[in-house]
Amino acid sequence: MTNVQLTHLQLDNYGPWTVTPEPRREMDLQTLQTRLFADVAQAVGRDGGYVFPTRFDNLIAVTNGLDRRAHETLQESVRNRYPVTLSLGVGSAARPADALDAASTHLHEAGSAQDSDRTEVFGGEPLSREARTDDDLHVAHFDVDDATGVYTDQLNEYDAYLAIERGFSSLARHLRTEHGALAFFAGGDNVIAVCPALSDEAYHEAIAHVRADANVDLKVGVGTGLTAQEAGMKAKHALEHCRESGAPVVRDHGGKSPKLQIASLDA
Amino acid sequence: MTNVQLTHLQLDNYGPWTVTPEPRREMDLQTLQTRLFADVAQAVGRDGGYVFPTRFDNLIAVTNGLDRRAHETLQESVRNRYPVTLSLGVGSAARPADALDAASTHLHEAGSAQDSDRTEVFGGEPLSREARTDDDLHVAHFDVDDATGVYTDQLNEYDAYLAIERGFSSLARHLRTEHGALAFFAGGDNVIAVCPALSDEAYHEAIAHVRADANVDLKVGVGTGLTAQEAGMKAKHALEHCRESGAPVVRDHGGKSPKLQIASLDA
Amino acid sequence: MTNVQLTHLQLDNYGPWTVTPEPRREMDLQTLQTRLFADVAQAVGRDGGYVFPTRFDNLIAVTNGLDRRAHETLQESVRNRYPVTLSLGVGSAARPADALDAASTHLHEAGSAQDSDRTEVFGGEPLSREARTDDDLHVAHFDVDDATGVYTDQLNEYDAYLAIERGFSSLARHLRTEHGALAFFAGGDNVIAVCPALSDEAYHEAIAHVRADANVDLKVGVGTGLTAQEAGMKAKHALEHCRESGAPVVRDHGGKSPKLQIASLDA
Amino acid sequence: MTNVQLTHLQLDNYGPWTVTPEPRREMDLQTLQTRLFADVAQAVGRDGGYVFPTRFDNLIAVTNGLDRRAHETLQESVRNRYPVTLSLGVGSAARPADALDAASTHLHEAGSAQDSDRTEVFGGEPLSREARTDDDLHVAHFDVDDATGVYTDQLNEYDAYLAIERGFSSLARHLRTEHGALAFFAGGDNVIAVCPALSDEAYHEAIAHVRADANVDLKVGVGTGLTAQEAGMKAKHALEHCRESGAPVVRDHGGKSPKLQIASLDA
Repeated sequence: MTNVQLTHLQLDNYGPWTVTPEPRREMDLQTLQTRLFADVAQAVGRDGGYVFPTRFDNLIAVTNGLDRRAHETLQESVRNRYPVTLSLGVGSAARPADALDAASTHLHEAGSAQDSDRTEVFGGEPLSREARTDDDLHVAHFDVDDATGVYTDQLNEYDAYLAIERGFSSLARHLRTEHGALAFFAGGDNVIAVCPALSDEAYHEAIAHVRADANVDLKVGVGTGLTAQEAGMKAKHALEHCRESGAPVVRDHGGKSPKLQIASLDA
Repeated sequence: MTNVQLTHLQLDNYGPWTVTPEPRREMDLQTLQTRLFADVAQAVGRDGGYVFPTRFDNLIAVTNGLDRRAHETLQESVRNRYPVTLSLGVGSAARPADALDAASTHLHEAGSAQDSDRTEVFGGEPLSREARTDDDLHVAHFDVDDATGVYTDQLNEYDAYLAIERGFSSLARHLRTEHGALAFFAGGDNVIAVCPALSDEAYHEAIAHVRADANVDLKVGVGTGLTAQEAGMKAKHALEHCRESGAPVVRDHGGKSPKLQIASLDA
Repeated sequence: MTNVQLTHLQLDNYGPWTVTPEPRREMDLQTLQTRLFADVAQAVGRDGGYVFPTRFDNLIAVTNGLDRRAHETLQESVRNRYPVTLSLGVGSAARPADALDAASTHLHEAGSAQDSDRTEVFGGEPLSREARTDDDLHVAHFDVDDATGVYTDQLNEYDAYLAIERGFSSLARHLRTEHGALAFFAGGDNVIAVCPALSDEAYHEAIAHVRADANVDLKVGVGTGLTAQEAGMKAKHALEHCRESGAPVVRDHGGKSPKLQIASLDA
Repeated sequence: MTNVQLTHLQLDNYGPWTVTPEPRREMDLQTLQTRLFADVAQAVGRDGGYVFPTRFDNLIAVTNGLDRRAHETLQESVRNRYPVTLSLGVGSAARPADALDAASTHLHEAGSAQDSDRTEVFGGEPLSREARTDDDLHVAHFDVDDATGVYTDQLNEYDAYLAIERGFSSLARHLRTEHGALAFFAGGDNVIAVCPALSDEAYHEAIAHVRADANVDLKVGVGTGLTAQEAGMKAKHALEHCRESGAPVVRDHGGKSPKLQIASLDA
């Protein structure tokens, strides 16, 4: 059974800051938001975590591997180098959506995102090392079949973007509603999802749903591990096997002699 | 009449690079993608341009104000500091979507995004200074009414994200289909669109469409100018006026004594 | 005759900020200082300027090519993205040291570097385009003969650093005292100096001085131009010619057919 | 007794890369060098390490707290995000200079800094957790008495820089020669040194030497710890006590109730 630790990171009072004393240059805001995200990515990444941009002023990080001190060091580092501060809530559960409910609730209970008195909250408790196992994370890495040939080299970039966005949105809503899994757009034509333990059938079903709902063809590699990085890297390798074999769903069971399993509907 | 110059920037052969000789750490890719974007944002921003993340390996920049040399310096700077290179196509037209068609076509004609022999393309021609006027850019800055109260402080962050994403997606498709306008998610609950010259009625109609289609309430500030930065900053000020007056659509006509016009359906 | 425009950039009240409310993590300070410097480097570089780290809280930039607006945009960009602000003074003269006297004086007259009430000063006036010529900048790029073989591959890194630092210090003091030229350590074994118009003899003399005073052997490429970037790039090419020809001093006169002149003591 | 672990990090074949196929823009090189340094600073800082710019293409990091995996992750991260790669050698000893000799020797034995076939070397072995103690690091944080009043607010920035550089150079050579301690310029008027266990008399002597040799007045705070960050933060606090008490040398013995000792020549 999975045990996902999620951290909801939120910039304190950011909306008001962006327009005080008057609106700030948009390109400076884009630069600040993306560089702060990049710093969070490097910081959580060093301990095996994952984080994706989503809304930029609010980030969802998979933080199995980061203890209390690692989180506090990240808050301190942002305080020392940016004109804004970070609050965070941590939660864990088998289903990612439940872990996030817990994490976000810690923030809500401490105060509003736009409460100028609420800064650098730390709510919740990271998992202890003893509570963590190699089966905690299941990561699925989806990409679009021949995105370059079908979209990128054919359509203007905005229309290519809308087509892929439609596929992402369909997948994200399906995984969230059906399984409490959280899918994140990772750039290009890639979507990385943190899932509870799902059957091969569930992945085939998700792919079929997106084909019917958004007319986008996906394939997926799945991996498991102690951290998001470990599970995610196995998923990437499994996805490469999809590319080579033509199979839409492949799991990488890792280990010294990786056993790749082509997960077909016939299995 | 508007005259939008758009540059489609594309990382050369990026997909293959991310998995050669084997898949690369996801957090390193996220860091590279977002920091490269931030550098593009600072570079185009210095000349009054705008750019937003969209797919990261492909970027759409509003580049009125950047000449050929500015574009080439950007390509050179990326080549000198990153393990990847940038190709780009430039196009201009009254309707943003038409400008982007021209820009993307220049790239398509030079070769595939995943053609290892195609690097650092420069297709198309930036507008000359003489061809540019103060009416070239119309920028609309939308945000969600009380996003913090309705979504951020109530839902877990993923559900808040999905709700806002639904609103963005609805707005983006409507503006693209009806007007050839291109809308970009700018973080938080903000959407910035580059538009042809639109009537107040068109903006009210977009807002009504999103309310009905996605159950999200928007307001918008609109500004015009010689560059995206000039038009966009006026749009930000107009949006502040929306906040203060309660009006859903406000235009900022700028100038020494800004004339704010509350653009209502009765006007 | 040269006409160097120098900008003295200074972080406002930085010393006190680093220890308020208590001392900040050193690695966060190093990260902030170097990234702020990198942003200044990219910003001034886009207009053909040069800047080097020196003390980090105080930077000396060669800003021929940056007008008032470019300087103000840089101050605004720092204000929007960092927890500190920038004051600056601009001066110009034939001798770099005199230009810097003027620039620094503007800051001194506005208030102390540690005056919490003094922020975002802008003193002095950048050169108008009409006042600028192709002979404004003379840049000399020095490097150490076979630094890798003599120092890097032989000594521990600190001793290699001390040896090169001795050479840099000797060169810097000589150029400053004799000619009012300002030399900056550029990393590795490179020193880049902004000079008044100097004869070949003066460069040979500087090299001889450093050999006698610090036992370090230098060679130098010299270039001239409208901006530091233009002069500096010619100097780099001239330095490559030193490498190939074995001559210690080479000037690059640029133009379509670069005329490289081996500037020997016999000339 | 101290037990300093130092890592000599070196960019592979960097000199040739900067001029191949032809010389690269200086501001791009400055940006790359400083941002790569900033990334190394954040990475080593997360595990309690210290690193300073020195020559940029070669960095000396105090890495007590970083194991083999942490070093390898750093090399991988640079490979994934920069156009250059990092080799490194690790060494440890009571005297910092001896630790660095060991570290640099590992690199020298693997090949030249400009050997295009030598990339991503990892030589030496980090200390095991069992081998480390709270007395491993002694860090001394020096700054110049009233640098702002004496130099920054009085002289042009280059002359202020030369004056402080003279003080740093004198201190660095004295500490290196007398004690095998390694001092690093940290920006502004700060110098941070990694030392073997030194007596109060040794610190007073260093200060007296610099006053006589370079006419610069220093004060110093000293701290000890398991990591450079721990020792260095105590040193910063001790330096604040110097500021308040007027004493030139103060040690911070840390612990729950920090015992600050004014280390005077009479003690």
